[in-house]
Amino acid sequence: MEPLDEILHRQAITAVMHEYCRCADQNHNEEQAALFAPDGEADWGVPLKGREAIAAFLSEALSKYAATSHHVSNIEIDFVDDTHATATSYVIAWHRHHDTTLDDVTLFGRYDDEWVLLDEGWRFARRSLRFAGGIGRAFPNTLPRRASRG
Amino acid sequence: MEPLDEILHRQAITAVMHEYCRCADQNHNEEQAALFAPDGEADWGVPLKGREAIAAFLSEALSKYAATSHHVSNIEIDFVDDTHATATSYVIAWHRHHDTTLDDVTLFGRYDDEWVLLDEGWRFARRSLRFAGGIGRAFPNTLPRRASRG
Amino acid sequence: MEPLDEILHRQAITAVMHEYCRCADQNHNEEQAALFAPDGEADWGVPLKGREAIAAFLSEALSKYAATSHHVSNIEIDFVDDTHATATSYVIAWHRHHDTTLDDVTLFGRYDDEWVLLDEGWRFARRSLRFAGGIGRAFPNTLPRRASRG
Repeated sequence: MEPLDEILHRQAITAVMHEYCRCADQNHNEEQAALFAPDGEADWGVPLKGREAIAAFLSEALSKYAATSHHVSNIEIDFVDDTHATATSYVIAWHRHHDTTLDDVTLFGRYDDEWVLLDEGWRFARRSLRFAGGIGRAFPNTLPRRASRG
Repeated sequence: MEPLDEILHRQAITAVMHEYCRCADQNHNEEQAALFAPDGEADWGVPLKGREAIAAFLSEALSKYAATSHHVSNIEIDFVDDTHATATSYVIAWHRHHDTTLDDVTLFGRYDDEWVLLDEGWRFARRSLRFAGGIGRAFPNTLPRRASRG
Repeated sequence: MEPLDEILHRQAITAVMHEYCRCADQNHNEEQAALFAPDGEADWGVPLKGREAIAAFLSEALSKYAATSHHVSNIEIDFVDDTHATATSYVIAWHRHHDTTLDDVTLFGRYDDEWVLLDEGWRFARRSLRFAGGIGRAFPNTLPRRASRG
């Protein structure tokens, strides 16, 4: 890939990452699911395949919240070939319940992605979310961390 | 716009977004206001027009705090033409009061901007801040969110 | 530097900033120290020089935590010449202790860097961390902030 083309593909993938967050925060479940390839896979704790299953899960998972805010950073993208890439990014995701007696939930996590370039643009072939941890709910650390040396 | 030029303009706008945060966090009110066009408009809850009004508001709004930290991400920029753009970005803004009996305030928000290219560089024609919510003070959700489906 | 080359160098520096966070969060102390030049300097409160001293400090400092998550944003890079740059970036760093009776620590800080291009790639000639403040432990504000005007 020419350097300029790679920069533009990098921007295009980053733009979809941001659209994913806006869709989550606006509770636009079908639009968010459409950012996955038709046979795309998601794993936010439960493995899912296909836009319909993903949209259904998002509708259920996000309906508990009156507001959410997904702040993505530390974006690293590696191109496998002209139409495939892998990516890692960090997210701080804040959630407020409809039930205001419940604590806000803030998670500190990492997305690991596989990307594919379709006619409609770059789409998630696979996205999984793991946690360093969080506040307001028990989030076990599901990210790799080398044990401290004594 | 040529692809390379667009990338450079995108970098230039992003740089001003970051300078805006540094100015806020260093309490440099006039420098922050100078990032707006002379007739630029700001709306952090109250509509303002012009650098003088904006600097006065910032001085008042930020003087309550001993420290702030504005972390911006999810930057999306769309060019209208060679000298105009719109942009959306996310912010986590942490605030510590001078009065240490008061709780820290952390807001999760989104900036919506209109940009204009002047001789001095890209400047805000308009910036508004809305909230998903926050911690330490009541922040009503002022961002659009589709109601959950039953 | 040609505009396209500068963009690629900017991406390369940003990539090392992200690798630094991943290394911290995975407790990979030697890999993190290797992102510094052999005679590189670090200052997270105590001045350090050289990869060995830096790795030893990181091993000690990060071993207290069961999990950490370093979210970097507001990246500003200025090139001094073809092989030197300065940079500023913001970080939200969340830490969970092994001792679960201790509060999580979240800091809001800023890195100020000097970079050098070696054969192995861009490396930190110097990185220092200062704080706007934090939650869960006393973080004095060590960043410049103009006093409010009365």
